[in-house]
Amino acid sequence: MNIAVLGYGTVGSALARRLADSTIPNLRLTHIFDRRAPLKRDARLGDVVWTTDVEEIFASDAGVVVEVIGGVDPAREWIRTALARGKSVVTANKQALAHGLRDLTTFACRQGRQLRFEAAVGGAMPIVRAISDAMAGDRVTSISAVLNGTTTFVLSHMEETGLSLDAAIDAARTRGYAESDPAADLDGSDASAKLIILCAVAFGIDVTLSAIETRSIRELTARDILSARRSGHVIRQIASAAYDARLRALTAWVAPVELPRDSFLARTRGVENAALVGCQHAGEIGLFGHGAGGDATAVALLSDVLAIARDPAALVPAPVLVRPSIVTGLTARTVVEEAV
Amino acid sequence: MNIAVLGYGTVGSALARRLADSTIPNLRLTHIFDRRAPLKRDARLGDVVWTTDVEEIFASDAGVVVEVIGGVDPAREWIRTALARGKSVVTANKQALAHGLRDLTTFACRQGRQLRFEAAVGGAMPIVRAISDAMAGDRVTSISAVLNGTTTFVLSHMEETGLSLDAAIDAARTRGYAESDPAADLDGSDASAKLIILCAVAFGIDVTLSAIETRSIRELTARDILSARRSGHVIRQIASAAYDARLRALTAWVAPVELPRDSFLARTRGVENAALVGCQHAGEIGLFGHGAGGDATAVALLSDVLAIARDPAALVPAPVLVRPSIVTGLTARTVVEEAV
Repeated sequence: MNIAVLGYGTVGSALARRLADSTIPNLRLTHIFDRRAPLKRDARLGDVVWTTDVEEIFASDAGVVVEVIGGVDPAREWIRTALARGKSVVTANKQALAHGLRDLTTFACRQGRQLRFEAAVGGAMPIVRAISDAMAGDRVTSISAVLNGTTTFVLSHMEETGLSLDAAIDAARTRGYAESDPAADLDGSDASAKLIILCAVAFGIDVTLSAIETRSIRELTARDILSARRSGHVIRQIASAAYDARLRALTAWVAPVELPRDSFLARTRGVENAALVGCQHAGEIGLFGHGAGGDATAVALLSDVLAIARDPAALVPAPVLVRPSIVTGLTARTVVEEAV
Repeated sequence: MNIAVLGYGTVGSALARRLADSTIPNLRLTHIFDRRAPLKRDARLGDVVWTTDVEEIFASDAGVVVEVIGGVDPAREWIRTALARGKSVVTANKQALAHGLRDLTTFACRQGRQLRFEAAVGGAMPIVRAISDAMAGDRVTSISAVLNGTTTFVLSHMEETGLSLDAAIDAARTRGYAESDPAADLDGSDASAKLIILCAVAFGIDVTLSAIETRSIRELTARDILSARRSGHVIRQIASAAYDARLRALTAWVAPVELPRDSFLARTRGVENAALVGCQHAGEIGLFGHGAGGDATAVALLSDVLAIARDPAALVPAPVLVRPSIVTGLTARTVVEEAV
């Protein structure tokens, strides 16, 4: 199976290195698209076509296109074009999916191709598979999760060092865990996009990004962290969703929340992600894993690529999505306390 | 898709109720085999054929046979026969798999049918999928897990009440969490069988049950639990496996272990299962969920049935298994401390 990668940044290069590694049979990295391909060319990847022309990817014989350029456009259009040209697509792009999951999954299905996106939520934490495959035999009723590795790093670093938010952000940048502008991480819009993807696979609903109330961690001070700590708590950016299918009522928000120090979600450190999934029949299941970093995300991408290589004709049905009739935000603290 | 169920005990009846529930489209429970079928017949399941003759199942038009009779034989032979007669099989039977995973998965593959067994390990905790699908793009190097819900219940009940082991076992029986003879749970052979299945999917190795060192929790007293508690520890039955692929060296054992009270595996309560999976590239991932009980196991079975119904022609490759050259048991406590 020939593989093309769109985007040669932290994640794209980590994936390319894994694909070039001889221990993975039957996969061959043949094309890399990057706007700055001439500057990024890496001889260690061997006989790969480097291009700045995305059309060269669409026209190639790659069976799978891995999209890791990020952002809504042109990524969304390129995913669609790759599917239209008969390729299956693996993506880590939560923004493109948050703005087009229904359209893209339906289109993939119509094309008889696969669109897989484990890497878009939770890095190596296998939350998309857990919900869409493992809990297919149940009804998911709620999700409470830590979905942004950058804010987990910043908040746990503030706890450990007593540093200010800005100093902790600098430390995250130094380690490659934060963009130069981490606004999307801090203000919750990154986690919101991921929550929208989980709402689609867990509840079968289609929510727009603007419907999800988000509160930033921007205003948190070292004093807030210390004060929480004194009462046995830590602060985490929590993404929460609960759905009542009968009323088609969704409660969903992303916000900093004080959690008892030894609760499951509070135990996240560094760039960890964690999720609690409430199910009608099986009770609660929990997952954690590295939620950021090139290597962890590359594992999720590669697992999706391998699933396609193993069974190129596999049927991956598009989730049937309805619009919720009500979307409520962070109305009461008690909701949170129960959920975690 | 027509479904036949072999075995109408706690799990089989929980699954049958879910299948009879009108909210699951495209699945129809058509046959139930049970040795005592005439006594168990339940009119609420509607128009189902109840039989004491397993040949009636093989001759039926069921596309999926769910095997929950348990035990090695005749279950193993019946799984094989169902596959030979063109049916896909979903099983919760760790004993049959521990004694025949290589043969059965290879045979299923040759028949072009699916053999799925998420329910055989960890109940609703999706550990089989996590390892075989989600971590396919990584190399799993270690597993430390709580895999027996009955012993978790017994040990956490002893902690909470100060009761003796025997009294806690009685409490587990009362709640339907322990068999009349819970020897396989207490002595570790149940967890060993599950560990063998995980070793196959995680490391690609074929280990015999007798090669895994097991230590019973039988001798634990209320005083042991109390003494652990005083030093900030709890005792759990841990199933541990680590594999060095280069040396083909496996270290694997099941034993009661003292764990720091707030460590991930120590936090299991009631019938919970939990697992830490160490991976070469993605670091550690963790999972927990209800590991026992009819409803939780039925969810895992039903998710597997739905995967088959969604894509009856899906290719599920048999794991390619080698024999480890060395299998080591519980040699040093330090191994444990690192693993958890």
